[in-house]
Amino acid sequence: METYTGIPKELKLAVLERIKPSGSEREKLLTIQEELALQVKAAAERLGIPDVVVKMVGSAARGTWLSGTHDIDIFISFPEETPRKELETMGMAIAKEVAKHAEHAEDRHAEHPYLNIIYKGFDVDLVPCFRVASASQIKSAVDRTPFHNDFVKPRIKGREDEVLLLKQFMRGGGVYGSELKTQGFSGYLTELLIIHYGSFENTVYAACSWKPGEKIDIMQHSEIKHEEPLVVIDPTDPKRNVAAALSLDKFCMFIDHCREFLKSPDLSFFFPAPLLPFEDSEILERLESRKSAQLAIVFKTPDVVEDVLFPQLYKMEQAVAALLKEYDFTVIKTGVWSGKTETAVMLELISGTLPNVKKHVGPPVWVKIHAEKFKEKYQTADGVFGGYIENGKYVFEIQRKYPTAKGLLEDRLMSCSLGKQVHQSVNEGFEIIENAEICRLKESDFRVFLRKWM
Amino acid sequence: METYTGIPKELKLAVLERIKPSGSEREKLLTIQEELALQVKAAAERLGIPDVVVKMVGSAARGTWLSGTHDIDIFISFPEETPRKELETMGMAIAKEVAKHAEHAEDRHAEHPYLNIIYKGFDVDLVPCFRVASASQIKSAVDRTPFHNDFVKPRIKGREDEVLLLKQFMRGGGVYGSELKTQGFSGYLTELLIIHYGSFENTVYAACSWKPGEKIDIMQHSEIKHEEPLVVIDPTDPKRNVAAALSLDKFCMFIDHCREFLKSPDLSFFFPAPLLPFEDSEILERLESRKSAQLAIVFKTPDVVEDVLFPQLYKMEQAVAALLKEYDFTVIKTGVWSGKTETAVMLELISGTLPNVKKHVGPPVWVKIHAEKFKEKYQTADGVFGGYIENGKYVFEIQRKYPTAKGLLEDRLMSCSLGKQVHQSVNEGFEIIENAEICRLKESDFRVFLRKWM
Repeated sequence: METYTGIPKELKLAVLERIKPSGSEREKLLTIQEELALQVKAAAERLGIPDVVVKMVGSAARGTWLSGTHDIDIFISFPEETPRKELETMGMAIAKEVAKHAEHAEDRHAEHPYLNIIYKGFDVDLVPCFRVASASQIKSAVDRTPFHNDFVKPRIKGREDEVLLLKQFMRGGGVYGSELKTQGFSGYLTELLIIHYGSFENTVYAACSWKPGEKIDIMQHSEIKHEEPLVVIDPTDPKRNVAAALSLDKFCMFIDHCREFLKSPDLSFFFPAPLLPFEDSEILERLESRKSAQLAIVFKTPDVVEDVLFPQLYKMEQAVAALLKEYDFTVIKTGVWSGKTETAVMLELISGTLPNVKKHVGPPVWVKIHAEKFKEKYQTADGVFGGYIENGKYVFEIQRKYPTAKGLLEDRLMSCSLGKQVHQSVNEGFEIIENAEICRLKESDFRVFLRKWM
Repeated sequence: METYTGIPKELKLAVLERIKPSGSEREKLLTIQEELALQVKAAAERLGIPDVVVKMVGSAARGTWLSGTHDIDIFISFPEETPRKELETMGMAIAKEVAKHAEHAEDRHAEHPYLNIIYKGFDVDLVPCFRVASASQIKSAVDRTPFHNDFVKPRIKGREDEVLLLKQFMRGGGVYGSELKTQGFSGYLTELLIIHYGSFENTVYAACSWKPGEKIDIMQHSEIKHEEPLVVIDPTDPKRNVAAALSLDKFCMFIDHCREFLKSPDLSFFFPAPLLPFEDSEILERLESRKSAQLAIVFKTPDVVEDVLFPQLYKMEQAVAALLKEYDFTVIKTGVWSGKTETAVMLELISGTLPNVKKHVGPPVWVKIHAEKFKEKYQTADGVFGGYIENGKYVFEIQRKYPTAKGLLEDRLMSCSLGKQVHQSVNEGFEIIENAEICRLKESDFRVFLRKWM
């Protein structure tokens, strides 16, 4: 593999200085990990549960965590033949024993229940899993994680800094994180990229020329075709694309971030200046200069995790844009913001109003039966301005049902296909606010969102 | 041929009573025709021009003129071998001799020069032509007319009333007249329809089921393929479609007129109530209820005949609509009105203004060279609001060049492809007036046009 040397060493060092865990941070994390491992074992013994193995996984276990992220993943592994129900009961029982020493504990639920605790300031997930023979025989998605650990750990040794650089670089470009809100790169994916390309530099150079369909298959064992923009075959499972969650736009944003970075390598690509919240005056000034129509659909934030909420919000964004288009409004762009209490689907339109008159084109005059039906229906209807023939077709100028986007949304939003929790929340009440009324939303995080939006 | 009897006889009689020339009208016209024929012959003799034959053609000669239309067509026919230049000189010399007895004379020009005179209140065209052996060997378009006369006259005998009914019915439907302004049915075409279908009723019934491509070939001698909506092969020329000038919309309007008429046969289909000019208050009321944007491009009416002017105006209509569309304005409809002094191209738009911001979509990020060029161009350009990636493509929000339709037209109208005389006139000056400003156009005929338009 070719090695590029275009990125100043000092820049990398300056970045690492800010993101690489210090000796004491490292030591503290290792101590806590061991402490917790012992507690899990002790709890299993106390509860008389045999055959439990404790596995430390994730970036903490692999030495690839960014300084300041205090996440520890501890997997409580049961024999493969354990019945699912039993695994859940016993796993959670052990986790809850451990939680007795924690500052805070919270039941969570992915494919299985698991326990999230705050322990001495660390954010710890205690996750029951099956101990299967290989990653292709997993019984639950989490069973895969220990295999990832086994693959990465020996291969990343000595290149942990490269992973840290890539992670922070992706964070700076807004593409780090594989949650459904971000649809970016997962930590495991960055590690595989470093293993494949050898270094941060090589990855950045390579990505500049990526095209959708880019495929990386370290083990050369790919079995099926994938349609995602980036395909990185899981070394532990030939059927799985590790980059399946990466959206086309995040894929492209990363390419763009790499290209711009190589033009002028700079600390700001890792640590962009934080955006200030938009002031009321800035909102008004921007409305005046853009002269488009800004609408926000505001409703109570549904009480669900982001991985459930955001797919529903993105779906809503699409559905609302389709509704507006169906009724002749021209959407410039759509966006989604969600805060603790309120959520807003943002819409920018060419105009929030349309004329009362709407041109309704019917069938060609010579398609006799259809044409006659069409004409009969409209020439006697209420609110018809007039009719004529254009390009051989009957055309009626009819009264537009929804001359304002606000009116349309107020009347028809509930008929859009919305996800369960979003539907519930919207059904309880929503508000359409327009242009200057948007100043009513004061949350600082929303105002930061607005700075990018407008 | 099936004969329908669904149209009340009394209705036809009532129509004929108003349109059929009376005995005295007929007599007067015949007298004038003979008088003029003698004068043409006398003039030819006086000027020493041999071998001149006088031919009475047109509806006056065939007894199919509508009462009150005082048009006489007299063809001055020269031997085929006469040189073109000579025919023009001698023909016009004879015509000008005749014109000495006329109230008024005016040189006109189609393919050849001809003379239009007012003679005892009649509108007379004196047209020099070649005496060719058959209509397929004509040297000039007018040479065909005597052959039409020879074909129609013996076959229409006894069915003149049917022709009159059909002509008046078409007039009532706004589809009579084959000038380039109207693009409807010519007199000769109505006569052929009656010869083919046998009667007014039969024609109306048949037309209800016409489709584009409808073909009538009385002599069964068609030689080439025609693309026009209605194809009526000229019985005197197997290559010619008599209905070539009929537009698709006029074809459809006639079909529609026939269908509506048969639903409730009524005098109004022949004599629609005249439209009253739109008052200022009506214009304002209609603007308020439609809430669309009305624009008029107003300029001095070019000093050319309608057959030259209207094709240019229709072309302008298309060009202006394309220009507006290119700059993101949505055209509801376009129209053309031309009066003695002023001409207006009318435009109805969804809105006459657009936001300042315009979304400019570039190439996909992965098409590296193009994408980089695009980005470079826009990220440093003036008046760019911002950029982002959407569906894998760079998008920049740029300053719209023309946020108003009026500004666009004022700046770019002259770059549209306009016909010669219209271009000249527009170049001398034009004005874009909007909405209520349209009240400034006071001509009664324009106000009648507006009643249909709005």
